[in-house]
Amino acid sequence: LDEAAMAEARARQDRMTKPRGSLGVLEDVSVRLAGLAGACPPEVPEPAAVAVFASDHGVHAQGVTPWPQEVTAQMVLNFLAGGAVVNVFAAQAGARVTVVDVGVAAELEAVPGLLSHKIAPGTADMTQGPAMTRDQARQALEIGINVAEGLALSGVRCLAAGDMGIANTTASAALIAVFTGRDPGEVTGRGTGIDDATLARKVDVIGRALALHRPDPSDPLGVLAAVGGFEHGAIAGFILGAAAARLPVVLDGVITGAAALVAAAFAPDALGACFAGHRSVEPGHGATLRHLGLRPLIDLDLRLGEGTGAVLALPIVQSAARALRDVATFDSAGVTDKDDVATLDA
Amino acid sequence: LDEAAMAEARARQDRMTKPRGSLGVLEDVSVRLAGLAGACPPEVPEPAAVAVFASDHGVHAQGVTPWPQEVTAQMVLNFLAGGAVVNVFAAQAGARVTVVDVGVAAELEAVPGLLSHKIAPGTADMTQGPAMTRDQARQALEIGINVAEGLALSGVRCLAAGDMGIANTTASAALIAVFTGRDPGEVTGRGTGIDDATLARKVDVIGRALALHRPDPSDPLGVLAAVGGFEHGAIAGFILGAAAARLPVVLDGVITGAAALVAAAFAPDALGACFAGHRSVEPGHGATLRHLGLRPLIDLDLRLGEGTGAVLALPIVQSAARALRDVATFDSAGVTDKDDVATLDA
Repeated sequence: LDEAAMAEARARQDRMTKPRGSLGVLEDVSVRLAGLAGACPPEVPEPAAVAVFASDHGVHAQGVTPWPQEVTAQMVLNFLAGGAVVNVFAAQAGARVTVVDVGVAAELEAVPGLLSHKIAPGTADMTQGPAMTRDQARQALEIGINVAEGLALSGVRCLAAGDMGIANTTASAALIAVFTGRDPGEVTGRGTGIDDATLARKVDVIGRALALHRPDPSDPLGVLAAVGGFEHGAIAGFILGAAAARLPVVLDGVITGAAALVAAAFAPDALGACFAGHRSVEPGHGATLRHLGLRPLIDLDLRLGEGTGAVLALPIVQSAARALRDVATFDSAGVTDKDDVATLDA
Repeated sequence: LDEAAMAEARARQDRMTKPRGSLGVLEDVSVRLAGLAGACPPEVPEPAAVAVFASDHGVHAQGVTPWPQEVTAQMVLNFLAGGAVVNVFAAQAGARVTVVDVGVAAELEAVPGLLSHKIAPGTADMTQGPAMTRDQARQALEIGINVAEGLALSGVRCLAAGDMGIANTTASAALIAVFTGRDPGEVTGRGTGIDDATLARKVDVIGRALALHRPDPSDPLGVLAAVGGFEHGAIAGFILGAAAARLPVVLDGVITGAAALVAAAFAPDALGACFAGHRSVEPGHGATLRHLGLRPLIDLDLRLGEGTGAVLALPIVQSAARALRDVATFDSAGVTDKDDVATLDA
């Protein structure tokens, strides 16, 4: 982040026609956007695009969710038909939707809007062995980097990250447990809404996987290979690619949060490009945001994924940048600043 | 609110291609929008318009703020020139800005975008007598009702409420103390950012005004006349007008919240049309939202007013409606519903 641009943004916020600090978190957002762009004011980050990374999970075999695995592929088709919530939120926000198949366990026809980068038809079951090879983990990262680069080259100025993958809250909780050092029981939630027995099984499954692999958080590629998903790797790469292109990337919920932990383990500076779109009700997500030091922009009990919470937050990020660029200053608007009055009084 | 439309909206939310309940607060928003419109799905509430009601306050003479009174008029000119934060947020959200002078203590030239309905050049000092006459309070309400009606007739489908008035957090805290039954010390905040001595003076001023008038919360016109502002009356009317036109009205912070308490005291059902755009850092606002039973959509430490928090929340309200209208159902998209699976399993 460019310190000079950030200092300039802070100074400009203080001259804008409003009480100092009165835009709260949006002032911080605008300052970080300036630092990321290396300019004050930065461009308003639009147009935006949300990339939804879809993949399946071998751990589904352990009964961690009542949803059948084929729902991943069905939802990909729903995204491509424009019928999912992320499509509708994106239409409202004026954002483009790109769907990336990194490991859906079904053959998907090549259609416009779908990027086919299938690494394998789903990961392996993490309770039986590593979810993927180190080479596959590297592939996932590279796919994400390339998708971010491609969107940047096509003129997109704000990225949003989303996911689809039945059972991917299980892999997310495992990643979060490793990187935050918390107990699986603390960071595992009900995902799409599972019952107590399934939740207990899910916590047990994660505990067994961690006992089997003993993943080392200082080896993020190893952690990703052991207990991650292809979409986690790709989203981590997407974040690294966004940071390299100096574009803001708005995160969604617990899956993109877990991926951000992976990205931060590779390159902590990449977090400078990350904005937390929302706080999911998943317990692991709160722990993740605290660990990453990110404050969520929206907190409305969403737990859907797909990038819905990220897309919903796009107008807030864009408004923060637009205010920094377009709001008049006390001088230019001829508005009296209370601090000048205080000086005259003294 | 139309119960049948709300039931239909709830049922549709459960058939949409997403886990049940996973849109959290947005599901409640969509259900209420359906109830308000009397139809499921309701129209997406756009275009939107924010009305900024501006006025001055006699209590300014008591030294409750370091900002000089002329800043109210200066900021009105800033709104009309498009240079304030509310203009910039509205441009980003695609909303129109209307400025209404209900009592600015300066002559304002008639220009496009300004509705001139000045009741008087500011209220009287509430510590010396009533802030306004009952007739003036009634006038303020009528102005707000008419502005809402006019916007509805011009094709606007979502209203947002904003305010401008140096010293109007003092009048707001007084109104909030009366309607919530709380102590002035609990509901009085630093407004634009005052120091400890000014805060203590502000609490004392409110205490003296309440002791002088002993306002009766069951006589909302009397409360408004005793300690309110012209903009509070007009915003209360605006809410009543929105509810009468069955249009959603998104509230801003502590000033519009105090006005909503007035509106609710006249007609509790009007709250069915109200959505809390955000939670201000002002302590009186939290108490107000709890009293009104409204959950804020945004909670980002804003304390600016002008309608900024309301406008920032517009895309959330619009997205909630759009999802209800446009998201595919499990049947239509051919996506397997986990509850059908559970039934098959059983």
